[in-house]
Amino acid sequence: MAVVLGPNRYGKAETRVVRVTRDGEVHHLKDCNVGVSLSGAMEEVHRRGDNAAVLPTDSQKNTVYAFAKKHGIGEIEEFALLLARHFVGSQPTIHHARVAVEEYGWERRGPHSFARSGGEVRTCVVHHDRDGATTVVSGLRDLVLLNSTGSEFHGFAKDEYTTLPPATDRVLATAVTARWRHLLPAGEESRDYAESYRQARRCLLDAFAGTYSLSLQQTLFAMGERVLRERPEICEVRLELPNKHHFLVDLAPFGLDNDNEVYFAADRPYGLIEGTVLHDDATPAGAAWD
Amino acid sequence: MAVVLGPNRYGKAETRVVRVTRDGEVHHLKDCNVGVSLSGAMEEVHRRGDNAAVLPTDSQKNTVYAFAKKHGIGEIEEFALLLARHFVGSQPTIHHARVAVEEYGWERRGPHSFARSGGEVRTCVVHHDRDGATTVVSGLRDLVLLNSTGSEFHGFAKDEYTTLPPATDRVLATAVTARWRHLLPAGEESRDYAESYRQARRCLLDAFAGTYSLSLQQTLFAMGERVLRERPEICEVRLELPNKHHFLVDLAPFGLDNDNEVYFAADRPYGLIEGTVLHDDATPAGAAWD
Amino acid sequence: MAVVLGPNRYGKAETRVVRVTRDGEVHHLKDCNVGVSLSGAMEEVHRRGDNAAVLPTDSQKNTVYAFAKKHGIGEIEEFALLLARHFVGSQPTIHHARVAVEEYGWERRGPHSFARSGGEVRTCVVHHDRDGATTVVSGLRDLVLLNSTGSEFHGFAKDEYTTLPPATDRVLATAVTARWRHLLPAGEESRDYAESYRQARRCLLDAFAGTYSLSLQQTLFAMGERVLRERPEICEVRLELPNKHHFLVDLAPFGLDNDNEVYFAADRPYGLIEGTVLHDDATPAGAAWD
Amino acid sequence: MAVVLGPNRYGKAETRVVRVTRDGEVHHLKDCNVGVSLSGAMEEVHRRGDNAAVLPTDSQKNTVYAFAKKHGIGEIEEFALLLARHFVGSQPTIHHARVAVEEYGWERRGPHSFARSGGEVRTCVVHHDRDGATTVVSGLRDLVLLNSTGSEFHGFAKDEYTTLPPATDRVLATAVTARWRHLLPAGEESRDYAESYRQARRCLLDAFAGTYSLSLQQTLFAMGERVLRERPEICEVRLELPNKHHFLVDLAPFGLDNDNEVYFAADRPYGLIEGTVLHDDATPAGAAWD
Repeated sequence: MAVVLGPNRYGKAETRVVRVTRDGEVHHLKDCNVGVSLSGAMEEVHRRGDNAAVLPTDSQKNTVYAFAKKHGIGEIEEFALLLARHFVGSQPTIHHARVAVEEYGWERRGPHSFARSGGEVRTCVVHHDRDGATTVVSGLRDLVLLNSTGSEFHGFAKDEYTTLPPATDRVLATAVTARWRHLLPAGEESRDYAESYRQARRCLLDAFAGTYSLSLQQTLFAMGERVLRERPEICEVRLELPNKHHFLVDLAPFGLDNDNEVYFAADRPYGLIEGTVLHDDATPAGAAWD
Repeated sequence: MAVVLGPNRYGKAETRVVRVTRDGEVHHLKDCNVGVSLSGAMEEVHRRGDNAAVLPTDSQKNTVYAFAKKHGIGEIEEFALLLARHFVGSQPTIHHARVAVEEYGWERRGPHSFARSGGEVRTCVVHHDRDGATTVVSGLRDLVLLNSTGSEFHGFAKDEYTTLPPATDRVLATAVTARWRHLLPAGEESRDYAESYRQARRCLLDAFAGTYSLSLQQTLFAMGERVLRERPEICEVRLELPNKHHFLVDLAPFGLDNDNEVYFAADRPYGLIEGTVLHDDATPAGAAWD
Repeated sequence: MAVVLGPNRYGKAETRVVRVTRDGEVHHLKDCNVGVSLSGAMEEVHRRGDNAAVLPTDSQKNTVYAFAKKHGIGEIEEFALLLARHFVGSQPTIHHARVAVEEYGWERRGPHSFARSGGEVRTCVVHHDRDGATTVVSGLRDLVLLNSTGSEFHGFAKDEYTTLPPATDRVLATAVTARWRHLLPAGEESRDYAESYRQARRCLLDAFAGTYSLSLQQTLFAMGERVLRERPEICEVRLELPNKHHFLVDLAPFGLDNDNEVYFAADRPYGLIEGTVLHDDATPAGAAWD
Repeated sequence: MAVVLGPNRYGKAETRVVRVTRDGEVHHLKDCNVGVSLSGAMEEVHRRGDNAAVLPTDSQKNTVYAFAKKHGIGEIEEFALLLARHFVGSQPTIHHARVAVEEYGWERRGPHSFARSGGEVRTCVVHHDRDGATTVVSGLRDLVLLNSTGSEFHGFAKDEYTTLPPATDRVLATAVTARWRHLLPAGEESRDYAESYRQARRCLLDAFAGTYSLSLQQTLFAMGERVLRERPEICEVRLELPNKHHFLVDLAPFGLDNDNEVYFAADRPYGLIEGTVLHDDATPAGAAWD
């Protein structure tokens, strides 16, 4: 019985890079957080501390900054692809690269003045293998949505610990984490990622607002399905939807009714609904979700 | 030498209340976090645990919900005033109330569907005394602003620990916490707080974007001054401006120049500039800033 | 091309339960955070909002509390196993349960008085399937360790973006997230989890302190290997070790040397080393790491 | 009506410094977070961006590191005093310095190996004026305490919004933020701050555990009083005690009683009790609490 090394990766996390592009008076801003994870011939470093195969995480950080200068930061998927291909292509000991990028939005307030948008963060995770396998997952997190009606929850299973009354009109609120996998025929990794993001985001928003909901699971499926039906470049959607409970406050002790008007927004515990919606003929995901 | 009780207060913090108002199909949403702090005849409870003077914090929470139902939540300053007057007016042992409200913004996505705005949070703190003294401070926090040029920093004092080179073109970024005190002639606490907030916020944004800055202190003063000059209902502005440093990355080792294009957005340490701008004849602040 | 439902689960996250056991004057305290995730016959709820198969997350929360009363909370692995078996065993539509528990430590300060330990959190994740497959992963997170010497980093790969100088004496610091999978012969899920945890934790601490480190990967492997060599009940260890960089401050401009005495503790970016160490004949992990 | 500059200060916040002292094989560690705030002749920089009076915050950071080397970091109060005197003494435009230090504890695990203690953080805030006025406030935060019995709450005031039943046996839990002001006869700022801290902390812990509590206010007063009675070098104590509510779970629907055994640890809202306990002849606090 021997002790062996299993799956492993290493890299530089959370390199915060802000790229300014000057177009005369008018500046443009890209504000990103980049995480690199590399794997490959790493037996020796784990076993004996021999670093010959290890490109320092410091060099990875430097590469992020140098690439931001040389190539600019276009869509985050493109920037991640550039970086992933670079690490695998230039270091023989690196067989696989995972690059994750988050982008923070800014609103223009003047030719070179900006206010951070707050709200959701755009995300992507790219994998690239020396065998050429490439996956691109785009997404967003922290998109907080709420419907103040049009949501019910009843007809559920009951056991001896069930006390929840059925609800025929409730608030439905969630903080969306959504990730969607791009259909990527070999050699066709390039596409209009900006437009794809805008449209996928719109699908999520529209499906949440437009679904008369009998359960958060139903809403989740509707959100994923909407993306898949409208965006042929996307083959799989994964959603994590915490149920941000809004409990109706009992005002009866004060002689007041509460006809779905006053809610307590609770923190913990919360329901958590996680699900995948995909095309039945979606290509295998490979490392896409790792 | 005796041990005595000094300044003290107690209350319920962070009561999260969401108020829905139905206008037929169209719903309106107010999402707030309310903190109540009361003080008064509290010697006995501290000395002997005699709670006769203590209105439970649980009752304070209930009051927030009941008032949200009975009065709705209009502008947060008005809601805070209602609550503060109620506690002082109804409990003889309560001599002073401080009510703080934060409001989270939502954007409409449908007749009863919303997406949380993210970004800054609107705030207020109201004090009300049984002698009738009332103060109202409005404000915001977490408004993140950045100018990608139009900022210098040089000509500063130097000592033996100074290594900072002068900067003639730098990124200036901050996360604004601003609070402004309303001029409140007795009995005139009511005003258009919504419009006042919108305009004060605009002044802050415009002054930040429009000030060619030789130091963050100068920008701070300009922001406060702009509010005071344009808004006669406001007599004092307090600002906390962390200097969110954006350091130019040294790309020379890679044969690249960096003409103010690629920045590292640092977390810690950070400069912190705090200042007050006020009218020379501003009425005394009383408890306003406590 | 049809849209189908892929992997999914739902449940109640972060049920905070505190269990007091009274032994006369002396009280005992267990403070936990429980997350339940169930999966099974969930096609209908996603497709049509038919909740007949859905045991409400509210009932799951109630079950956590009722079980804390009925069975007490012994070792968190045992409590998680009880819950997981209950959900799968009592609801025909639930085919699989994942129960995660975090435990917060408290130090005794009196017969019924306690101070929270702070520092690391003990964790476990249990999976149970209606086919009888059961996995138990124990662990901890937020264990922050530092060696002020006995760490080097050199001999690494270099590319055009490498500027890092070799280090022959550096601070090595990390915040350990460790999880270890128990070898569980069918029907033998019960063991002394308390002692197993104490010993696994000791192995991690000892290996970190006792390894002269040429790279954080080497330290990671040594930590995992130590657990496996000393604890036959454990067959796989997964570690996530952020490299909490401590940079030597350049004091030369002030006429001072800095012989590894004064460090800047950086936040971001940071190296992140993730790895698995396991027995070559470890049983398949199944759902253990999901 | 002119616009004038009111109270202001500026400085470098959150300089993270780790100081290693080598005693042969055995190393010692001090891990601190230092915040500097300076004020003085700052009219010009606010009005016109003239930085002649402004010692850069970068120089302040450098000073922290250089002083850590030159003087070591003894007790944090001493380190803060050194820094505060330095800034006021060396820069004619700086009339007042406030230095705040937090210290993170580490437990020894080997001659040069450490594990971070977690739990509470030791704090201090020092003010020094060019007139010689000096104040020292020591303290701690995030000390989480819980009594599982020995706490009641009843006999409180009631109004129309009061529904809380009286409690004769409840859990009392809080996260202590405590700050205490030292009695500092001129020129006698030096004392055994380590021992003073240990003893003050012990007083807080003992008083919390040892007070049969009829209200959190009573416990607060007892904690402050204990410090004052046992520590003649301390003249004022300020405490912020959030009431971390532990609500008894209603298990009756499941046919179970709950005799103070199973609690839900709630997050928000929470009671917040703030109070000051001081000697009636305490010297004026000056800027101590700013």
